[in-house]
Amino acid sequence: MDASRALMERDAYAKHSGIKLLEVGPGTAKVTMTIGKEHLNGLGGVHGGAIFTLADFAFAGAANAHGTIAVAINVSISYLRPVTGRVLHAEATELSRSRSLASYMVRVTDETAQLVAVFQGMVFRKPDPIPTAA
Amino acid sequence: MDASRALMERDAYAKHSGIKLLEVGPGTAKVTMTIGKEHLNGLGGVHGGAIFTLADFAFAGAANAHGTIAVAINVSISYLRPVTGRVLHAEATELSRSRSLASYMVRVTDETAQLVAVFQGMVFRKPDPIPTAA
Amino acid sequence: MDASRALMERDAYAKHSGIKLLEVGPGTAKVTMTIGKEHLNGLGGVHGGAIFTLADFAFAGAANAHGTIAVAINVSISYLRPVTGRVLHAEATELSRSRSLASYMVRVTDETAQLVAVFQGMVFRKPDPIPTAA
Amino acid sequence: MDASRALMERDAYAKHSGIKLLEVGPGTAKVTMTIGKEHLNGLGGVHGGAIFTLADFAFAGAANAHGTIAVAINVSISYLRPVTGRVLHAEATELSRSRSLASYMVRVTDETAQLVAVFQGMVFRKPDPIPTAA
Repeated sequence: MDASRALMERDAYAKHSGIKLLEVGPGTAKVTMTIGKEHLNGLGGVHGGAIFTLADFAFAGAANAHGTIAVAINVSISYLRPVTGRVLHAEATELSRSRSLASYMVRVTDETAQLVAVFQGMVFRKPDPIPTAA
Repeated sequence: MDASRALMERDAYAKHSGIKLLEVGPGTAKVTMTIGKEHLNGLGGVHGGAIFTLADFAFAGAANAHGTIAVAINVSISYLRPVTGRVLHAEATELSRSRSLASYMVRVTDETAQLVAVFQGMVFRKPDPIPTAA
Repeated sequence: MDASRALMERDAYAKHSGIKLLEVGPGTAKVTMTIGKEHLNGLGGVHGGAIFTLADFAFAGAANAHGTIAVAINVSISYLRPVTGRVLHAEATELSRSRSLASYMVRVTDETAQLVAVFQGMVFRKPDPIPTAA
Repeated sequence: MDASRALMERDAYAKHSGIKLLEVGPGTAKVTMTIGKEHLNGLGGVHGGAIFTLADFAFAGAANAHGTIAVAINVSISYLRPVTGRVLHAEATELSRSRSLASYMVRVTDETAQLVAVFQGMVFRKPDPIPTAA
């Protein structure tokens, strides 16, 4: 678990996007992001790429917490409602896992606990252990 | 077209992610990103969220260049190969467009012109014109 | 609700595929299929198209049970495990619904209650009431 | 190629759905379906499950024509327009292929050559050769 947590902590794009890891365990992760001006699109709403990146970080956390490398191969995201408030949360849960593949659902909720996006992702699982440095 | 281009230029998360608009026209857009350390994940590869955000920016450009507001409702992205080189390009093309909905394909290629990701996105089209400021 | 149920009951491809409606209500539906030789693919497994059609029927039931016409615009399906046993169930739940759009999750389970596929679908909602005949 | 073609020809659900294989080669396939009453939904349109099954058959043909078994793991389909006319075609092309994974795009067109649906699918590739019987 320490290797997985370290993997998440050296994630540069998540850090650049202001995303924080709250919890991570085998097949599950919770992350959060406080919305700033840098997360907005040209219409003044929260950018679809920022919402995706938040969900993707929870997905990566959950998938890599089994101790071996998991690489994203496919994601489908649906944007359900505009964001209300200043904080977003994403929580990943594992739907299935075999030797080579695993599948996750991530729910993104806003400050009012409304579901703003739902993300379904699949990873290819390599046999290699998580490296202790990039 | 000027309103659409202005919309893209005030996109804060694209700017924060170092993404540049190359071309935009009704139903089409080309964008690019030079890969920096801030785009990497914990394994040292280009972050799936950064690749998504690049593709999403081309998608938004193409969809909003008809002059009225287009809001992303669903995206599916497949990651096909690891990135080679230091530059990524994304090009969006329109597959269909009706009064309320439109659908786009975005191809993301790397410096060797290999296809690294394919992105299929759908927007809901509002009747409102693109505002001239956020 | 009678108009919605009648809509499901005159669904020719669902009938042709041996799919039965168990329950339907606003935003929810349960359907089932007993696997026969006609549902198999060339490898002897349950055909991905048959699993999709089962899930799609639950999705259509849930989405049309609000009394107005809902048209599928996008679906993402992940196949998680091979099917065990002779019966499949699909259950749709509503994730979100606005005036023009709604989003559903469908879980497909087999006779051992294992999740074999997960389906995420979006509809465009028309203002027109469900017709009483095709 | 004979083993792959035989695999397609013993596909029971495709046959049950009236789908015919036109061409198949490594990474590519063309299939067709003449629309009958059994393909309709309760609103009298072509059923989303029938359109999916048509596209899925092209996808399976293209993916299995390399001689080893390919199993569908994820598909995203967008429905772009209502169908015009009485015949549908689907054509699959390969976007990428590695040892364990491959990705395909399928375009579904109607009798007026309009694009009615676009389908993006991923398979897991097993090392096992296509069996000569189910």
